Amino acid sequence: MPANPTAPATDGGTETLGTIVHVPEGDSTYGKRAFRNVENLLADETLTSDVTVVCNGGGVDHLLRSAPTATSVRTLVERGVDVCACRNSLDSGGYDADELVDGVRVVPTAMGELTKQQASGSAYVRP
Amino acid sequence: MPANPTAPATDGGTETLGTIVHVPEGDSTYGKRAFRNVENLLADETLTSDVTVVCNGGGVDHLLRSAPTATSVRTLVERGVDVCACRNSLDSGGYDADELVDGVRVVPTAMGELTKQQASGSAYVRP
Amino acid sequence: MPANPTAPATDGGTETLGTIVHVPEGDSTYGKRAFRNVENLLADETLTSDVTVVCNGGGVDHLLRSAPTATSVRTLVERGVDVCACRNSLDSGGYDADELVDGVRVVPTAMGELTKQQASGSAYVRP
Repeated sequence: MPANPTAPATDGGTETLGTIVHVPEGDSTYGKRAFRNVENLLADETLTSDVTVVCNGGGVDHLLRSAPTATSVRTLVERGVDVCACRNSLDSGGYDADELVDGVRVVPTAMGELTKQQASGSAYVRP
Repeated sequence: MPANPTAPATDGGTETLGTIVHVPEGDSTYGKRAFRNVENLLADETLTSDVTVVCNGGGVDHLLRSAPTATSVRTLVERGVDVCACRNSLDSGGYDADELVDGVRVVPTAMGELTKQQASGSAYVRP
Repeated sequence: MPANPTAPATDGGTETLGTIVHVPEGDSTYGKRAFRNVENLLADETLTSDVTVVCNGGGVDHLLRSAPTATSVRTLVERGVDVCACRNSLDSGGYDADELVDGVRVVPTAMGELTKQQASGSAYVRP
């Protein structure tokens, strides 16, 4: 078997690719790692990527204005990342949408958003 | 960078999308969370999705008739979800296929099933 | 809802599919499981798959010549698997590329590689 003949060239060219990053865990170390991964992707000069972050389960904790990750989330939103919280998970956690960092978008379900965006061609990454 | 111009409309339209959910961990809290995620996806009125669940590693434990998640699995099967167990993982765990909840399908390898279904257009989610 | 009408036939035919396996955790049990999953995929006679493994975060630890998984990595490389380490993660861990098992490829970012390969049609799996 040859070494991966389907691999794209290292140069991503000028096309903009989509990436959807799934953050389903509430551990704060995990949250920091996930957001740092997104920052690394935005800084990667070998491709241009439009990035969506979808948090569900305990992962919605990272999106609260009171969270240690709030500054990272604010920076991602300002850089054009579409940061999303699952409504079901907010309800389960007893959170209101107005406790979220400004600019965070609420989606009906994380699973639905992840499905729709991949159906539209985005890559999926689960840190 | 504009905010995710490739994002699909919130309305998933009438097209049926495919979602494959990968459950590789045996922790029972994790299993319950994964199956609840699937139930949330089925209840999401913004899309229609055909769902496959693929369990491997410790994840096959959730599919046993003796598991605390057996009732959830039975409900998913009845709702048309294609619930799969990895044969390699059953062998490693010392389980027979007849210990599984009725209707669970045994696949040669989880990795192969996950690859084939994505090649056919299904989205991948790893709770 | 019918049971997954979009599922491909069990026979993967003669087409070669691509699979990209993401290994972001440094726990050695996790690393062994991930590499065993890859071996299972290569042994699955129902499909032919070109496999890429991308390690980042603590996951790059598994690729060091001094790691307990070094022999597994060497075997995968010899079998044609494209095994990749994230440069950012090597830098964060204080590792030099020459500490890696021979044949491991260094990529600018794991996130970018995962995005590019999925954009080229590879399936994603996160053990």
